[in-house]
Formats: sequence, C-alpha cells, structure tokens
Amino acid sequence: MATAPLNLEADVVELTRDICDIESVSGNEKQLADAIEAALQKYSHLEVIRDGDAIVARTNLGRSNRVVIAGHIDTVPVANNLPVQMLSMEREQVLYGRGTVDMKAGVAVQLKLAATLTQPTSDVTWIFYDHEEVEAAKNGLGRLARNRPELLDASFAVLCEPTSAQVEGGCNGTMRVDLTFSGVKAHSARPWMGKNAIHGAANALAILADYQPAEIDVDGLVYRESLNAVLIGGGIATNVIPDECVVTVNYRFAPSKSAADAESHLREVFAGMEMTVMDVAEGARPGLDRAEAKAFVAATQTEARPKYGWTDVARFSALGVPAVNFGPGDPSKAHADDEAVPVSQIYACEKALRAWLSVG
Amino acid sequence: MATAPLNLEADVVELTRDICDIESVSGNEKQLADAIEAALQKYSHLEVIRDGDAIVARTNLGRSNRVVIAGHIDTVPVANNLPVQMLSMEREQVLYGRGTVDMKAGVAVQLKLAATLTQPTSDVTWIFYDHEEVEAAKNGLGRLARNRPELLDASFAVLCEPTSAQVEGGCNGTMRVDLTFSGVKAHSARPWMGKNAIHGAANALAILADYQPAEIDVDGLVYRESLNAVLIGGGIATNVIPDECVVTVNYRFAPSKSAADAESHLREVFAGMEMTVMDVAEGARPGLDRAEAKAFVAATQTEARPKYGWTDVARFSALGVPAVNFGPGDPSKAHADDEAVPVSQIYACEKALRAWLSVG
Repeated sequence: MATAPLNLEADVVELTRDICDIESVSGNEKQLADAIEAALQKYSHLEVIRDGDAIVARTNLGRSNRVVIAGHIDTVPVANNLPVQMLSMEREQVLYGRGTVDMKAGVAVQLKLAATLTQPTSDVTWIFYDHEEVEAAKNGLGRLARNRPELLDASFAVLCEPTSAQVEGGCNGTMRVDLTFSGVKAHSARPWMGKNAIHGAANALAILADYQPAEIDVDGLVYRESLNAVLIGGGIATNVIPDECVVTVNYRFAPSKSAADAESHLREVFAGMEMTVMDVAEGARPGLDRAEAKAFVAATQTEARPKYGWTDVARFSALGVPAVNFGPGDPSKAHADDEAVPVSQIYACEKALRAWLSVG
Repeated sequence: MATAPLNLEADVVELTRDICDIESVSGNEKQLADAIEAALQKYSHLEVIRDGDAIVARTNLGRSNRVVIAGHIDTVPVANNLPVQMLSMEREQVLYGRGTVDMKAGVAVQLKLAATLTQPTSDVTWIFYDHEEVEAAKNGLGRLARNRPELLDASFAVLCEPTSAQVEGGCNGTMRVDLTFSGVKAHSARPWMGKNAIHGAANALAILADYQPAEIDVDGLVYRESLNAVLIGGGIATNVIPDECVVTVNYRFAPSKSAADAESHLREVFAGMEMTVMDVAEGARPGLDRAEAKAFVAATQTEARPKYGWTDVARFSALGVPAVNFGPGDPSKAHADDEAVPVSQIYACEKALRAWLSVG
C-alpha cells in the first residue's frame, strides 16, 4: 500500500495519528520503517542508518556529550481498534486505538523533535526499532547492540515507553520458574493406589497466596517486587489421579538483585520443591544518582518514579548507559483493547524533551 | 476379516485367548458380536436376541427365578499388547494383553457356561454388551434398559467385571464438580492492579490435601470414600495475572448417599467457593442382606468386599435388581499397558458360577 509521506513537522498529535494508522504489528514493520527512513532523510542535520527495520538518525554536531532517545515502532496485534479515533473521555481528548500508548505517541514525539531540533545542546542518536513486542531474540535494539554497538554509545538514554509523561527510572528484573509436582497415576476410584500431584501443589499455592513482596530502595527509588503464579496445569483425565502438576511462577525483582540473587531467593521460598528456571532478565538500576539523570529530571520538571515492567532500558543498563523511561500514555493501557493516550501527555512529552535538549 | 468360529466348549483359557485376539475397542465390537451371536445360536437351549452389537442369550426353562449374568465385550485402546501371550509371572500362569482383565476373561466364563449349562437351576439371561468403556450415553446395557427393559428382569444380577475372583458388592457413586476461581487480569509487572485466580485456588487445594475421607458401612460392607482433584488449569500467558483457575474434583461416595447428599457434602467442604456439578452417577448398594446375594456368596465360597469403582451394577440397582461384581482379574490392572489375568482366576470363576447355577 502506498502511503502519503510523513510530515514530521505537523502537529505531534496528527503525526501520532498518521503513524498509528500505518499498521505495524511485530514482523510487519517494513512499511512504517520505510516511511520513517524516507521522512528523516530529508533533514541534512541527520545521518540516517538502517539495519533491518530499525532506523537510526543522529546529529554529529561535535557536542561534548551524546544522548540516545529510543522507541519501538511495532505493536501487539490490532483488536479492531484501527484507524485511531479522536475521542473525548472523562473531559479530556484522547487518541484511541492500537499503538497510541505502546508506543507510537512516544515515537511521534521523537520524530517531531528529530526533524525540528536542528541544534540540540547534546548530540542525539534517535533510534526507531522493530520487534519489541515479541520474543527477546528478535528485538531490534538487541540486534543493533550486537551488530552496531557503537550506535548505542551515549552518556544517557531515554526510552519513550509510556510512563504517563513522568520519569520512570530503571526497571525490575523478571524471572520465570516452573515448579513441578510429581505423583503416581491411579484410577480415581482407588486413589490410595496412587499419589495426587495436584494436591502436592497445595503448599506452593499457599506460599504464593501468603507471600509478602519486598519493597526495595535502589538509588533513591522504591521498587515493589512481586511473586505470582501465572500458569497452572495438571491432570490427564477425570477418572485418573494426576501424576504431574506444574505451576509457572513469575518473580519480579528489584534491580539491585542479580539473576543469581533472584534464583536463590526463590529456592529458599520454595525449599524442597522441584524448581526449574525457565527464563530470566535482570532489571536496570535507575541511575538517578548520576548527573545526566538529575539533569533530565530537572529539565523535564517531573518527579522520578520506579518502573515496574521490564523494558529495554535494561539493554542500555547492560551496556553501562544509564537510562530512564519517559513517554506519553498510561502503561496499564498498553496492549489493552481500549488503548488510548491523552493528547495532553503527548504535548507534555514533546515540550519536556525539547526543553531538556535545549538547555545550555 | 473372517475368523474361525468360536468354540464355546473349549478350555475357558483358550476361549479367553480367542476372544481377546478379536480386537474390539469401543465402537469396533461388530466382528466379536457377530462371532458371539453365531456361536450361541448353535445351542437350542438358548434364545438369542441382538440389539446393535449387544447379544442377549437366555434360557426359558420355567424356573421359579431368573438371574442376569452380564459383561461388556469392548475394551480400551490396544497398547501394542495383542495378540495375547501366555506368560509365567511370579510363579503363576497369566494371559497377558488388552482385554484379558477388563473383561474378556469374564466374558469367556459367561460364554462357556452359557453353552454348557443346559439345565441351570435358575433361568439365566446372559448379556454381552457394547460401548462400556466410553461415554455413558453409548453404553449398550443402558441402551437395552431403555429399548428392552424386560430383558433385564431378574431377581439378581452378576456383572463379570474383574474382582480378583472375589464377590464385590455394589459400588461407590461418583460426582465430578468444577471449582472456579475468578480474578482480574493485569500485567504481571503490576500484579496489584489485578487479582490472581490461581492464588485464589490455594485454599481449595489445602482442603483437598487435608481431606480425611469417610469409611461408611452399607449392608455390612465398608465403603471407602475419596475426594481428589483430577484436573487443574489456569492462566493465559506468562506475563499476565490469571483471571480464572478451574479445579476439577472427583468425589467417590458411599452407595448409602444420594446424589443430593453428595452435592450437599461438597457444598459444605467447599463453602464459599463457586462450585458446579458437572456429572454424577449414584452408587449401588451391595444388597448383601438379600437372600439371593447370600446364596450367591455361599455358593461361590468367597468373602464379599466392597467395590470402589463405579460399574454397571448401578444400572441394575436403579432397576431394583440387586447386583454384584464377580470376575477374574485384578481391577487395578484394568486399562494398564501390562494388563494380565492369572489363569487360575478364570478357572475359579468358571467353577464358582457353575456351582451356583447348579445348586438345587
């Protein structure tokens, strides 16, 4: 489908609308990536680099420091919520539709500023990447970090993920474990011939139901941890005593803890149970004790809060680049069928980032 | 496939072998039903009636009472265990293979006695029926009870289901309920926005794990009850707080209890939880206080025990006909891949039933 060229100098809300209406569910980013690449190439103050469906545009003004401002251009599947609509909700104007929150409003802010901020006070590397909403192995920012790590060099990074236009620092880590309970099959008329694996899981569920998650201060932000069963399955047939029950547990742990710390905590919580670590991603410290982060918070005139969901800020953290999340939209509306962003937050983010990149 | 005619006067173990080797997994009983019908029709002392793949053969000698001796001719799916083999196991000879226990050895005893007992002291209705191992709606004995209830008229019934050649009276009832726990979905990074339905099931599993089943005396036999989770399922994805968890519970209850009694007990046990009755079949009282049953136990020289698994004796019980289970094979080997029947039990059942049907 041919699309009208993107006008990066349009009102940022109109620009949000335009890029939302170019459907770009993970794996289908090409059309939007093409449009972004073509629009950015018109600006002589930007060097534009493409890697797959990721676009990098950067200034090379010889500033004393460089910042990265990044966002992903893919969305979760559309839920009959495109094209976007402008609606009045609870006395505020919102853009309603897939991608408005996660995270095309943030991408629109990036694009508008990339085009119009020809003389930022720091050099800026703008990154627009693919495949964030699917398995980590496909993540476009991860691919850039492997193929072109020099493109991610910076003293500070901002990820424009939705934060309701507040600075959210770092992120919790996440670990997934399977607890496996074994039993012995028997006919359910003679259960004493077997051993019930579902009953064997009773203690694990009791531990989960009673668990008091910690709140942990990291660099001045308090991270709320959590421990939850996310899946449970067991049993073969309605007349058979089950010989296996698996409880899948998700532990969100503070960024002060390593993967090993998290695992050892869970081995203590579920002592005596068969536990297998299925997946882990460490968190990111907020880095709000760093001068760059303090300057960002000051320039954007917001108050920093902890980020609970794991985001790609952890990729910057792993590269030694302090990073925060800052973008329009309520993160709890991400992926929701009624995804909608207040337009006031889009303007607020544009204004705040422009102020930050204009301070002397 | 053409089969050699069945020789009903052969050694009962050879006859067991012959009918096991005619595969008759539920739905595929026709070939075996044809062979049984043809073999029984040779005997002038029997009236042979066919209904679908069920065969009824009865004497009409004008005796003062009539008994039913019934068995099903279908099996659960073959597990690479046909044709049957004669093996020595733990110093005894066994027939090893699908159907040997459940319940073609019993059917062979029925066929041998139907052919050779030309002058039983009670009139006998021999029933060989289809579709016992599948959903109750297809059950051949149930179909006969609906289509030709007069064929089931009797003062006593024996079902040749495996009982290790002991009399097992009546059977427990069985009720299946679903316990449904509801929650509220949320991203697992912010679980406090939702409510975890799997954690909500913790108390139900604790109740099940701690449950002390009753042992209930009915007509002189002690029935052991049981209450077990047989299935559990919950959760949508590894990053979503689950909004539903369903625990499927099987209650085996003594035959002195009605379905309503059973339900009210479970509503008390799981008070405050959302419980739906999915399936129920009442048990069968052993009827061992009846003269016919006492005579049977005496003639077969065995000691009566309670039956735990629900069997079609409950269909006779519902028709007002006292019924017991009596057949060769260990019921815990039914459906097992290593299903095998000791040949001594086949002979013992043949001898006991012959003695009973020969007493003056």
